[in-house]
Amino acid sequence: LSPSLPPCYNLAVKVSELGEFGLIDLLAKMISESGRATSPQLILGIGDDAAAWRSDAAIHLVTTDSLFEGIHFTLESTPWDALGWKSLAVNLSDIAAMGGTPKYALVSLALPEDAEVDDVRALYRGMIEIAGKFQVAIVGGDTCRAPLVSLTITVFGDADSAGKMLTRSGAKHGDKIAVTGSLGAAAGGLAMLAKKMKVNNEQDAAELSRAFLRPWPRVAEGKMLVETGVRAAIDVSDGLVADLTHICRASGVGARVEVERVSVSPALKVGFGSRALGLALSGGEDYELLFTASQDVMANVQKAAACPITVIGDITAENAGQVGLVDASGKPVHVSMAGWEHFKK
Amino acid sequence: LSPSLPPCYNLAVKVSELGEFGLIDLLAKMISESGRATSPQLILGIGDDAAAWRSDAAIHLVTTDSLFEGIHFTLESTPWDALGWKSLAVNLSDIAAMGGTPKYALVSLALPEDAEVDDVRALYRGMIEIAGKFQVAIVGGDTCRAPLVSLTITVFGDADSAGKMLTRSGAKHGDKIAVTGSLGAAAGGLAMLAKKMKVNNEQDAAELSRAFLRPWPRVAEGKMLVETGVRAAIDVSDGLVADLTHICRASGVGARVEVERVSVSPALKVGFGSRALGLALSGGEDYELLFTASQDVMANVQKAAACPITVIGDITAENAGQVGLVDASGKPVHVSMAGWEHFKK
Repeated sequence: LSPSLPPCYNLAVKVSELGEFGLIDLLAKMISESGRATSPQLILGIGDDAAAWRSDAAIHLVTTDSLFEGIHFTLESTPWDALGWKSLAVNLSDIAAMGGTPKYALVSLALPEDAEVDDVRALYRGMIEIAGKFQVAIVGGDTCRAPLVSLTITVFGDADSAGKMLTRSGAKHGDKIAVTGSLGAAAGGLAMLAKKMKVNNEQDAAELSRAFLRPWPRVAEGKMLVETGVRAAIDVSDGLVADLTHICRASGVGARVEVERVSVSPALKVGFGSRALGLALSGGEDYELLFTASQDVMANVQKAAACPITVIGDITAENAGQVGLVDASGKPVHVSMAGWEHFKK
Repeated sequence: LSPSLPPCYNLAVKVSELGEFGLIDLLAKMISESGRATSPQLILGIGDDAAAWRSDAAIHLVTTDSLFEGIHFTLESTPWDALGWKSLAVNLSDIAAMGGTPKYALVSLALPEDAEVDDVRALYRGMIEIAGKFQVAIVGGDTCRAPLVSLTITVFGDADSAGKMLTRSGAKHGDKIAVTGSLGAAAGGLAMLAKKMKVNNEQDAAELSRAFLRPWPRVAEGKMLVETGVRAAIDVSDGLVADLTHICRASGVGARVEVERVSVSPALKVGFGSRALGLALSGGEDYELLFTASQDVMANVQKAAACPITVIGDITAENAGQVGLVDASGKPVHVSMAGWEHFKK
């Protein structure tokens, strides 16, 4: 009730002062108070050797993704709450790309011992926020000390109740290629946050920044796609051309993308001009769904969709495993870009 | 067919020369050729946005554990194949501590770009070896570049078909406390491998080293315990006293351990003399099962067990959340030890 807190209250508390078990207690309490520690079929959540739940789904889906400080993010351009949001979002997006419903998450968190407790709270606030939006329960994980911050999240989901899925190997010759929403904003946001680029319009800047920091996984759209008859999809994490190449390789087909049809983020076009198309084709981290379907199914998708669906090209029998970029007249074009791959020098 | 390989063959190939997708292809091929990439109910393994399997188990179990270079292991004392074995073993042990059957594993691997491909192969050889012993399929994961080696493995299992489980919260006043096998060998092995201790007898040295590097998760014993009526267990990872404290806190009971009854590893006793008991009580990483049960159930466990089962004390109503160490006459004793906790300075 005192209007002024004692001065010590403002000193940053380090996780080393809490200890591992103190930190686990704090995080478990945050998750529990948010209502994200439970779900109707959960039997055991945080605090035992394993989590346990009942399920009557026929097919279970599971995915995992790691984010390392200095590799996938820097704390200069990614606030802690955004890091929490994004690290769960990228996993939800993988379940979306299967047409499934995410249900449970396990979080492995590594922190330097001088990490500040308030920052870790912010991290979990962001994670709990997105978990709430998608009704995902956080049921366990692991915390440990490490020289850098890293998060490895594993998400479990149920496949569509009819047992249908969106896979990388489901594309067929004659399919149309389409993408949800628009592309490139996340890459633009990163360039801006890393101060490699300046965007003058405040609203555009906010949109680019949100695209990079708080991507919205297309879970509802993935479910709609699988229900409408789509069988091939991937989420755009490496970049449109790189991810379409994954589909082409897995399906043994080729792809032809008409570059002028690609839906470039409007905010990106304004802020980045001639560089926008390259970022939309190769930037990655947009977490839109890239999918293929017959013309008939595609027409039904466009009727059912609550978000923009843009047809950008065709699946071909020739040039298996390859993506060709063409102009409106079908002539090959070259757009400068570089995909994102770990380890390559 | 040439008896002498060209000299370049012996040069260490770095993962940066393979690139991320080259490395994923290599690992997927190793797992596939080992037969560990599949299982009867698996629908999608490595290579899509998520793995997918069918299951008719009523209750699903899931656990995750991370190992970081410099925190959980050093490459000086842990060969790569042992690191692969152990990183999966610690997760299988968590499923064992629930009385479940492990089924699927996801592996997130972070590597410096100058890591050698042969070392990564050895890592996966060790992991595939133990996966084979327990019929676990490796169905996906993530690889990325990082300044240090780390592994986060998530394992999925089925609970006992009757839906019964071993939990930390199942201990009751009047229960006997027991442990499988013997304790302390892993801590002795670590002290020896870190060259803080020398063990002269070769057979003892090999046993201590194996206990630390290649722990054997007590999956069969966990299933036997749950079938025999045991309801409370944990695996000994932090150390006997620390892990028994976890049970006491979760169950709202106390524990009294008669220290002279604790089954100390014979190899440890020979090599470490008076330090052996302290290591057995607090050393950790033995991955034995520590459990509690009524006297009647305990008698049935001892009949059913294929490994030594040692009763070491009693669960008490008083001193909830605490573990007391006593001698044969019931008098409190002090044994020097230090539990393992992350973050505490």
